Amino acid sequence: MTGIHDPLTVIDGLVISKWSRAVFADMRKGGLTAANCTCSIWEGFADTMRNVAQWKRWFTDNGDLITPVRTTADIRGAKAEGKTGIILGFQNTSALEDQVGYIPLFKELGVGVVQITYNTQNLAGAGCYERRDAGLSGFGYDVVAEMNRVGILCDLSHVGAVTSRDVIVASKRPAAYTHILPAALKAHPRNKSDEEIRFM
Amino acid sequence: MTGIHDPLTVIDGLVISKWSRAVFADMRKGGLTAANCTCSIWEGFADTMRNVAQWKRWFTDNGDLITPVRTTADIRGAKAEGKTGIILGFQNTSALEDQVGYIPLFKELGVGVVQITYNTQNLAGAGCYERRDAGLSGFGYDVVAEMNRVGILCDLSHVGAVTSRDVIVASKRPAAYTHILPAALKAHPRNKSDEEIRFM
Repeated sequence: MTGIHDPLTVIDGLVISKWSRAVFADMRKGGLTAANCTCSIWEGFADTMRNVAQWKRWFTDNGDLITPVRTTADIRGAKAEGKTGIILGFQNTSALEDQVGYIPLFKELGVGVVQITYNTQNLAGAGCYERRDAGLSGFGYDVVAEMNRVGILCDLSHVGAVTSRDVIVASKRPAAYTHILPAALKAHPRNKSDEEIRFM
Repeated sequence: MTGIHDPLTVIDGLVISKWSRAVFADMRKGGLTAANCTCSIWEGFADTMRNVAQWKRWFTDNGDLITPVRTTADIRGAKAEGKTGIILGFQNTSALEDQVGYIPLFKELGVGVVQITYNTQNLAGAGCYERRDAGLSGFGYDVVAEMNRVGILCDLSHVGAVTSRDVIVASKRPAAYTHILPAALKAHPRNKSDEEIRFM
């Protein structure tokens, strides 16, 4: 497998795992250049910071396999060093609690991707499993603006259709669906219509 | 006053203030090159992170007056740019709660000085106002080792005598009294004996 990936830059849009050295070794074996690795789903602020602290220990203890990446230059560097670049990511904005001011702290600590909602409604907007989706809340608009300012990617994979559209329109930087499939292949609340994909 | 300080690098060992743009302007007027600015005294983890987040906003809003500094090169840079370099500092280890893993996060966010105790006993050791001081706790030794590893200065100004001696012996890097006076000039629980100052 590694042979196929040798000349390529392969970025996994989302990995969630019971992380261990064995998993990091498998990422190397599989020829993965970099990955968006989930460090918060339902956790609040302090528990998310503990997860980030745990990642810092993993970086120290497994520095031969993984390395934190924040820029495209870092990703190229990881490729050159034969390590997998780790982009820390959230699948929810629960870690922000009600504080937009936490966003630059997480950015500085290596969080590069944040999904606005995870399936259900939160302070920022609605998830893709909600019956109703009123779009971005006032707080949600503030979150998108601050993520834009500091340079965190808005992930819309588990986000509701109306909230997603609001984010795409409001965001001054490209947003992304990092882990979905086309609804044209299988109708499912987690998949996106051709129209949604085109709008993105 | 600024004239006197023009050729000098003047670092204030500790400033605590009701921070505002007026204070930052006064630091400039006073010819201050850099200062250890308190962002945690009794606060726990989340409240301290909010204070750090507030500092990030002050850096953005007052970038003509202040700039975060982490290294001696940064301090020289601040001097050259005519700004006051801000070293974020804690006067206590309450912000760590019981998590040594938070230390590298605070370091990464710009915290360069941490006082081990503030007057009273905490999880790490005893303060200078305690009747009894049993020295560093097990957690306290872990804190000093992790501060050494990531490069945060151990401040012993408000720390008890026995705990201070333990830190000085245990620390692999120089510790500091950033804001004390000699007890030989005035006997006071906050001041340090000639012997303590020599031991440091």
